[in-house]
Amino acid sequence: MKEKILGYLKKEHEYLSGDEIASRLGISRQGLWKHIQDLKDSGYDIVAVPHLGYRLLSSPDRLFALEITHGLNTKFIAKKIHYFDYLASTMDLAMQLGMQSAVNGTLVLAESQTKGRGRLGRNWFSPKYKGIYLSLILRPKIPPSVSPVLTLLSAVSICEAVKKVGGLDAQIKWPNDIFINNKKIAGILTELNAEVDKVNFVVIGIGLNVNNDKSALIAQATSLKEQLGQPISRVGLLQELLRRIENNYSLFEDRGAKAIIDKCRSFSLTLGRRVKIYCQDKHIEGAAVDIDQDGALLIRKDSGLVQKVFSGDVMHCRQP
Amino acid sequence: MKEKILGYLKKEHEYLSGDEIASRLGISRQGLWKHIQDLKDSGYDIVAVPHLGYRLLSSPDRLFALEITHGLNTKFIAKKIHYFDYLASTMDLAMQLGMQSAVNGTLVLAESQTKGRGRLGRNWFSPKYKGIYLSLILRPKIPPSVSPVLTLLSAVSICEAVKKVGGLDAQIKWPNDIFINNKKIAGILTELNAEVDKVNFVVIGIGLNVNNDKSALIAQATSLKEQLGQPISRVGLLQELLRRIENNYSLFEDRGAKAIIDKCRSFSLTLGRRVKIYCQDKHIEGAAVDIDQDGALLIRKDSGLVQKVFSGDVMHCRQP
Repeated sequence: MKEKILGYLKKEHEYLSGDEIASRLGISRQGLWKHIQDLKDSGYDIVAVPHLGYRLLSSPDRLFALEITHGLNTKFIAKKIHYFDYLASTMDLAMQLGMQSAVNGTLVLAESQTKGRGRLGRNWFSPKYKGIYLSLILRPKIPPSVSPVLTLLSAVSICEAVKKVGGLDAQIKWPNDIFINNKKIAGILTELNAEVDKVNFVVIGIGLNVNNDKSALIAQATSLKEQLGQPISRVGLLQELLRRIENNYSLFEDRGAKAIIDKCRSFSLTLGRRVKIYCQDKHIEGAAVDIDQDGALLIRKDSGLVQKVFSGDVMHCRQP
Repeated sequence: MKEKILGYLKKEHEYLSGDEIASRLGISRQGLWKHIQDLKDSGYDIVAVPHLGYRLLSSPDRLFALEITHGLNTKFIAKKIHYFDYLASTMDLAMQLGMQSAVNGTLVLAESQTKGRGRLGRNWFSPKYKGIYLSLILRPKIPPSVSPVLTLLSAVSICEAVKKVGGLDAQIKWPNDIFINNKKIAGILTELNAEVDKVNFVVIGIGLNVNNDKSALIAQATSLKEQLGQPISRVGLLQELLRRIENNYSLFEDRGAKAIIDKCRSFSLTLGRRVKIYCQDKHIEGAAVDIDQDGALLIRKDSGLVQKVFSGDVMHCRQP
């Protein structure tokens, strides 16, 4: 109901009579007034003027489900949203929801996380109202070995959304980080619940620095605000990201991993560089020559041998 | 405490004075009496004779943690046991416990399941007190692609335990079923919670028909009771199975997948046969020539081409 009321108020930029809204929604004036109060409590600046009605002056910078849903126009991504002011970790909750049969495309959003995590259990710093911290439940019909493609699909979607909304060129540092101007802006964590040959569901976790102030970022990290010199709407960015994920997911389903890997090459920060990859206690050094159909990185070592690497920590060596 | 009391009673086959047991355990006679009553309520036949003390006449055929633990002598398997008279599915609970940091080797046991499941969500019929229905949480340091080896490791362990305890020759129908005399006696389901390149934990599910009556089995299935002509102790069999899993797991950690695959070949019902494998909507027909290091089956097709199959439903063709 609140979503519908907001829908009307956002559509009209003039005053809307309370009688009209109430009658369109089939509720009482008193019921409408109560919903308006709730919205105001949530941070919506709504003025009420006698004989004129209600008018929305501004919306709060919150990732409320009704903000995300308004004008989203996706088919299955984020049709169900679980929103929290804070969570220990959106990943933990999404993995739980996946086990409880949450539908394909279910989104978990938190304004902050107390135990946000990245690959290999590392921390993800999640300050309140500054970034986008989400976990998305997907149910692709794939074996576990194909799941790295979903990380790259998310990476491509982040780059596309950042370009569209912020006009910035983001790049993918293989396997799961997004950089702008050689500084990290986002990380992706993909977790699976699977049988040995069949994924039950995948959870894609994304942590994206949006309106973080420079002073609160470590030297190797950046935010869109720092890059743009001004804050941007997290709602608009998240909506674009969700649309891009849906488009790329459909592309993946229709045309396979190749379509995603092709896009991924064009956004890659890693390809064409000399890299050192640390994987457990070994490391491999060489030229990053390509990304394989299963998302693996191909390294041409100095011996000329090409080695396939499935994951690891990549260090980009200084160009000679 | 009950475990200790039972330990004493099982060790001595004569009457044990209540004073002695109570003083050894540092509890009162009244406290001891209460524990004895609880044990009797659980089905332990314990007689108490004035001036002589307590004596255990028989134990119930139940997979109580204190029965499994007594004389088990494992290092990490089943040091923690969750036992239930019935559960919807041991898999579901074990996956939950895995997410709550359950230790390596944690065992979930149920005397019956209302929604026991096999590969690809198929049902596993789990009549009460007849079979062994378990899920085991393991935390191997492997990528998801190696997980099929754990299914085979469990399959080998079942064959070894059935041979040791029942003297029967069981065989592995690739990828996850155990047969005796061409009838199915057990199934294995392996599920993972993983990052794309690193398993967080694996849950091995085993359903094993032990004392099922022939009349309650479908034509293609059998039980150890049917094969032996008499019921056997589920506790003894489960203990042997857990020991074998621990041994084979250590073998896998020390010497890699090869050691498991070598054993698996010797127990295989599938190798050397002509097979049809149904995998999603395709099928492959040919001779099953070997099992690869990653647990995949190698099929030599009539064209001479050898194809690697990671999973599927295998039909053994009649020998020509």
